[in-house]
Amino acid sequence: MNRYWSKLVGGLDPYVPGEQPQDQQYIKLNTNESPYPPAPGVEQVLKNFAIDRLRRYPDPQSSQLIAALADYHGLKSQQVFVGNGSDEVLAHAFQAFFKKDEPILFPDICYSFYPVYCALYEIDFDRIALDDSFRIDLAGYRRANGGIIIPNPNAPTGIALGLAELRELLADNPEAVVIIDEAYVDFGTDSASQLNAEFDNLLVVQTYSKSRNLAGLRLGYALGHEQLIEALQRIKNSFNSYPVNSLTSAIGLASLADEAYFNECKQRVIASRERLTRALTGLGFEVFPSSANFVFVRHPTNAAESLYLGLKASGILVRYFKTPRIDNCLRITIGTEAECDALIEALKKILS
Amino acid sequence: MNRYWSKLVGGLDPYVPGEQPQDQQYIKLNTNESPYPPAPGVEQVLKNFAIDRLRRYPDPQSSQLIAALADYHGLKSQQVFVGNGSDEVLAHAFQAFFKKDEPILFPDICYSFYPVYCALYEIDFDRIALDDSFRIDLAGYRRANGGIIIPNPNAPTGIALGLAELRELLADNPEAVVIIDEAYVDFGTDSASQLNAEFDNLLVVQTYSKSRNLAGLRLGYALGHEQLIEALQRIKNSFNSYPVNSLTSAIGLASLADEAYFNECKQRVIASRERLTRALTGLGFEVFPSSANFVFVRHPTNAAESLYLGLKASGILVRYFKTPRIDNCLRITIGTEAECDALIEALKKILS
Repeated sequence: MNRYWSKLVGGLDPYVPGEQPQDQQYIKLNTNESPYPPAPGVEQVLKNFAIDRLRRYPDPQSSQLIAALADYHGLKSQQVFVGNGSDEVLAHAFQAFFKKDEPILFPDICYSFYPVYCALYEIDFDRIALDDSFRIDLAGYRRANGGIIIPNPNAPTGIALGLAELRELLADNPEAVVIIDEAYVDFGTDSASQLNAEFDNLLVVQTYSKSRNLAGLRLGYALGHEQLIEALQRIKNSFNSYPVNSLTSAIGLASLADEAYFNECKQRVIASRERLTRALTGLGFEVFPSSANFVFVRHPTNAAESLYLGLKASGILVRYFKTPRIDNCLRITIGTEAECDALIEALKKILS
Repeated sequence: MNRYWSKLVGGLDPYVPGEQPQDQQYIKLNTNESPYPPAPGVEQVLKNFAIDRLRRYPDPQSSQLIAALADYHGLKSQQVFVGNGSDEVLAHAFQAFFKKDEPILFPDICYSFYPVYCALYEIDFDRIALDDSFRIDLAGYRRANGGIIIPNPNAPTGIALGLAELRELLADNPEAVVIIDEAYVDFGTDSASQLNAEFDNLLVVQTYSKSRNLAGLRLGYALGHEQLIEALQRIKNSFNSYPVNSLTSAIGLASLADEAYFNECKQRVIASRERLTRALTGLGFEVFPSSANFVFVRHPTNAAESLYLGLKASGILVRYFKTPRIDNCLRITIGTEAECDALIEALKKILS
């Protein structure tokens, strides 16, 4: 703790993202990236972009991109907020909605960035335990709270709540903002954004990183009641006037315009997931029911950490969390069919 | 104030950037953008970028870009921090260093984002008055404080402190972090980064937006003692793991590699500034001595607000601040020679 640091800094326990090795070729099944390239229109944006535009500041409101996202989701522009990745959008949302007297609630097993945001903004929280099959138990969220955040599908479990359960959660908590973090929603469950008209306490957060194959772009957004969006804008305009750069906006528009490619990639990931699930089950793994672009698995006789290390030694990265309750599980991103086959072959060798 | 907002949100008074009209062609001399395009290498980055890279997350450490910036400034990588525009870097720095018991200090006339950051992070501040010729009076900074931030050259005045004065300011305040915000430093004064080895309480913030002609890219950085950089990383890693996207890093590297183009653009802006200063003086304006890519001016008989409106009606945007002490001044960005000529012609008409 350096004497120049504010009190806050020393107490932070920063988020650690999955390994991003820059110097070696791995089969990378550890950070839930897409195995497929961005939409072909993205390449055209880069080829045709007038670089002189880059000497100008971007539109601080990202109006065009917001209008396109609003149209895509059947909402008004005033109901859409964009940011530099959904991580930034979530950070602003924590500061805007969760700094309350009561603690906020989230599952004991979920996106491990949430407690980090709480430390950054000095927000109290309580973790609500998943049940023994790693499902969210809504009963735990029927108590006084300063807000609720749930990934749906949940990560790293991959298990989703249905629309009826989300409606129940929202109806149970009319006094608090409920954030549904839908990073993985396109791979197999319904978006809560359909409930925006019913609930003014709902904020849905989505990202271009997963189903739009654009993790390297850093573009995320929130959908919700215009009063919630206004709060996010107030925070953003007190932090960075132009969080989304001109190229990112143009690429975001191009990706959104290619629905056919979006659906094709999504369907391929889902098909590979089902195929991989069968193969892993065949090797004795328990595979939790996934609605995401990854599977969460454990083996009855082989420790997750040694499987993780064995795979790494074979040139395959998967995600291992040294965290209570899930320290015998692995999260495996759905790769191409060839990558999934390589994973199965490597596991066969390790298990034999 | 919506019931779902945290207490903080309602009290924010967000920053308002200069107008960025998306729908009309103005001669835009209002947001201190460069009149020249980014380095030619930037276009090559866009033409040659393998879009498949975008499906992967960026390097969370931005290692390559940071190494290049460290090399450029004669520092170690551990002394460099990058962010999504210098606005984001400044925001993190306020949270990392300025949340202290004593109020922080900055000039009464300077970058108007500083009090906004203070509201966002609940930091107390005192404004220290510039003297009557709009110069920073170092005597005002010899008092207990929780930190100091000064733009150098100052904005919107354009007036710079020299290295000896910066050294005095730093030596006077060994207990506090002193941030020198050098958005405009390349247009005519010395960078405090030369003092990094002498002072472990110094943080220098620079940007690609002005002298690198890349306002639309959103790339900024900080230079300082590695303990200060570590604090910024702790904040960043508690906010957004990957603030600088893959394309932005590649473009940042390409720009940095072309020193000749960088110098050429800089020299052209400086030459235009001197020429514009003479022309404005000839029209009766008082022009404050500028070391930046803008001039700050006032006219003895014509009110700044009416000049601003008159210029806007003629298709020329300049920046007018309705703020005590400077509400009779205009800040005018240095444009191309043709844009400066158009400004002078328009002013001649308005003044006649």
